[in-house]
Amino acid sequence: MASSGLSTSTFPVLVASLREHAPLVHCLTNSVVQEITANVLLAAGASPVMADSPLEVEEFASKADGILINSGTPTRDSLDAMRTAIATANASNKPWVLDPVGIGAARFRTEFLYSLLDSHPTAIRGNASEIRALAGEDVVGKGVDSLHDVPGAFNAAHLLAERTGGVVAVSGPVDLIVSPSRSSWLTSGSGLLQRVVGTGCALGGLTAAYLSIPGANAHSAVIAAHAHVGAAGQIAARKTMSPGSFRVAWLDALYEVCPDMVHDLVNVEDTQ
Amino acid sequence: MASSGLSTSTFPVLVASLREHAPLVHCLTNSVVQEITANVLLAAGASPVMADSPLEVEEFASKADGILINSGTPTRDSLDAMRTAIATANASNKPWVLDPVGIGAARFRTEFLYSLLDSHPTAIRGNASEIRALAGEDVVGKGVDSLHDVPGAFNAAHLLAERTGGVVAVSGPVDLIVSPSRSSWLTSGSGLLQRVVGTGCALGGLTAAYLSIPGANAHSAVIAAHAHVGAAGQIAARKTMSPGSFRVAWLDALYEVCPDMVHDLVNVEDTQ
Amino acid sequence: MASSGLSTSTFPVLVASLREHAPLVHCLTNSVVQEITANVLLAAGASPVMADSPLEVEEFASKADGILINSGTPTRDSLDAMRTAIATANASNKPWVLDPVGIGAARFRTEFLYSLLDSHPTAIRGNASEIRALAGEDVVGKGVDSLHDVPGAFNAAHLLAERTGGVVAVSGPVDLIVSPSRSSWLTSGSGLLQRVVGTGCALGGLTAAYLSIPGANAHSAVIAAHAHVGAAGQIAARKTMSPGSFRVAWLDALYEVCPDMVHDLVNVEDTQ
Repeated sequence: MASSGLSTSTFPVLVASLREHAPLVHCLTNSVVQEITANVLLAAGASPVMADSPLEVEEFASKADGILINSGTPTRDSLDAMRTAIATANASNKPWVLDPVGIGAARFRTEFLYSLLDSHPTAIRGNASEIRALAGEDVVGKGVDSLHDVPGAFNAAHLLAERTGGVVAVSGPVDLIVSPSRSSWLTSGSGLLQRVVGTGCALGGLTAAYLSIPGANAHSAVIAAHAHVGAAGQIAARKTMSPGSFRVAWLDALYEVCPDMVHDLVNVEDTQ
Repeated sequence: MASSGLSTSTFPVLVASLREHAPLVHCLTNSVVQEITANVLLAAGASPVMADSPLEVEEFASKADGILINSGTPTRDSLDAMRTAIATANASNKPWVLDPVGIGAARFRTEFLYSLLDSHPTAIRGNASEIRALAGEDVVGKGVDSLHDVPGAFNAAHLLAERTGGVVAVSGPVDLIVSPSRSSWLTSGSGLLQRVVGTGCALGGLTAAYLSIPGANAHSAVIAAHAHVGAAGQIAARKTMSPGSFRVAWLDALYEVCPDMVHDLVNVEDTQ
Repeated sequence: MASSGLSTSTFPVLVASLREHAPLVHCLTNSVVQEITANVLLAAGASPVMADSPLEVEEFASKADGILINSGTPTRDSLDAMRTAIATANASNKPWVLDPVGIGAARFRTEFLYSLLDSHPTAIRGNASEIRALAGEDVVGKGVDSLHDVPGAFNAAHLLAERTGGVVAVSGPVDLIVSPSRSSWLTSGSGLLQRVVGTGCALGGLTAAYLSIPGANAHSAVIAAHAHVGAAGQIAARKTMSPGSFRVAWLDALYEVCPDMVHDLVNVEDTQ
C-alpha cells in the first residue's frame, strides 16, 4: 500500500508522461551493460542512444533530452567523452545523472568522479558503498557490489545533495532519495534484481529519462524512476524466482505496468 | 498469403540453404549489439565472428564468407578495421553489407559512410532516415531511430542502388528492397522489433549471411534475410506482446521456423 | 548415473561451497560476452567484476579471488591489462584461467597466447581446436568454433598440462579434463549450448570462480565448473529445444540446481 502525499500522487502521472514524451537518453555507460540499458529504456517508453566516441559525443549530447554518466569501465577516451557530454548538458540546462560505479575500488575512476561534483549532476544514483565513497567517507569497495546498508548512507547522501544541489538516490532493499530539502524512502522491487547484471546501471539511464520530462520536479522524477523499476521487479518476482526468467519478466513488466499499478506496488514515505 | 513470382518461390530455398551452408559472418558492428547479432546468426543457422581489432581484421575477413559493416559506435580504430575488411572482401569478391547506423547525427560517421559508397557494398540496409541521409538528402537524425516512413525513401534507395550497383533495403513496417532493375515490398514482422535493441543491426548481419550462400541471387538473398527475420517476428508476436519475452521468442522462432512457414508468413510484391 | 570415485564425491560439495564463498572473479574477456559472463557468475553464486582498463586492472585484480583471461577481442590495451592481471595473480598465488579464444586464426592473439604459457595458468579451457593450436599443433581455425573433436585433443591437453603444471579442459559433447597426473571425461550438457554465444566463455569465468574456493583441489574445481554448467544445460534442454528460451532456462538452472542434482545429471570417469 502506498502512503499519501505529493510523491505518491505524482509518480503515476510521470510514468504516463514518460511514454508520452519518449525522451532521448544519451548513455555514456560501461561496456557490460550497454545492451540491457538500451532495452530497459525502450521497454519503459524512452529512446536510447549509446554513441560514446569523443569525436561524436557533443553532437549526440546536444540532441538528447537527458544524459547518463556511468563509470563502470572507464578509459581515457570515455572520460573525455563524459566531460564533453556534461559540459554540453550544463550549457543547455539538460539533466544529467551520475552513476559512480566502482568508486573507491580504483584511483583512476575515483579521482574522475570526485572532479564531477563541481559540475552539478542533476541526480546521483548508486549503492550505499558508492554514495559513501563519493561523499568522501573512507570506505573501500572490493568490486562493484555494495558492502554497506542504505540507512548507513543517509548522511553521505545529504552531504552530496547539499554540495551539488541535486537529488541523491541510494539503491538497495529500500531506496533512499534525498534532496536538499526532502528525503524519501521507497520500498519495492525484488532481491533478484541483484542477481542480474545491469539492473542498477539501467535504473541510472531511466532516471535521466524521467528527469527530462518537461516540467517534472527533480525529486519526484527520481522517485518515479525507482518506482517504475521496483514495481516491475515485484511483478516479475510473482512469476519466477530465478534470474534468467526474472530478467525477461522484468523487461516485460517495465513495458506493461500501468501507472496505477506502479502506485499500488510501491510504498513511498517522506521524512523531514 | 504470399504472392507468386520468383522472389517468393526462391526464399524458402535460401532459408534451407543457409542452415546447410552455415556461412561464417565477420561482424564489425557497434558495441551495443554484438551479443544479439551473434545470437541471431547462431539461431538462424550461420556462424558469427566479431574480432574487430585493426591488428587482426584482415586475417579474420579473409576466412569469412560474408562481412557486416555497422557504424553504430565508431572509433578511429574501428573505422580503420572496417576499411581493411572491405578491401579484403572486395579483393576476393566476398559480399559485404553496409548498415549506416546514425548517419546524419554526427559528422565523423557521416563522412566515413559517404566515403564507402565508392567501395560498392553488395547491400545497404537501414531505416528510412538513414537511407535518405546516405543518398545525400538533407535529413538530420536525432539519434538512431527513423523519423521518416519507408515509401518516402523510395527515390533515395533507387539512387543508391544505381550508384553502387548493389541491393538497398529500407526496413520498417513494410520493408522495401531495391536493386538497379527490381523493387520489392515485403510485409511481415511485428512492431515489437522496434522495442528490442539490435534487431535491425542483427538483420544486417543475417543479410551478409544470406548473400554468402553460393549461387544466391543478391536481391533474393536480401529478401530472404528480411523474410526470415519478419516471419520469426510474426511467430513471436503470437506468443507475447511484451519486449522481454518477445526477444526470447523471436530468437527461438529464427531457429525453429521452417522454410515453408516463412513463405506463409511473409508477403512479397514486386513493382516495376 | 555418476560413477563413484573422488571426483564425483567432491564436486557436489564444491557447488555448495561456491554459493557459500561467493568468490569475486575479475574477468578480462571479450566484448561480445561480458554481459552473459557476468550473469552466469551471478546465477551460479559468484560475483563478477569486469573492469579492464590497464589504468585500473592491478587494483581490481588485487582484490579479486580469481581471474579470467579470454582472448576473444584483443587490443594492445587489453593485452597490457591481461599481462598486469596475470602478474598480480601470480604474485599472490591467486588462480587464473586462460581461455585462448580464436588462437590460430590471427597472429596477434596467437603470439600473445603462446607467451602466456610460461606464466603458469592455473587452468586452461578451450575447444579442441584451440587446445591443439595452443599446444603447437598445426591446426588453423576459421573463426572461433572448433573444427576438431575432443578425443583428438588428448595429447595436446597432456602436453599443456605437463608444460604449465595446470589443469587443461577441452570442452565439447564430452569434456576432457587433464592434470599432469589425472584425466577425467565428463558427460553432460546439451548441444544447444553451441547455439548461444558466450556459454563457453562464461564457463571459463566459472572455472576461475571454482578454483578460488579455499582449499579446493584444482582438478576437482575444474570438474565442478564443467559439471555445474553441464547439469544446468541438461535441465534447460528438458524445457526447450530452441536457443532463445534455452539461454534463459540455462541461467535459471545455474541458479536453481542443487548440488545433488548436479551429481545425478553428470557422469565423470577417470582414466589413468
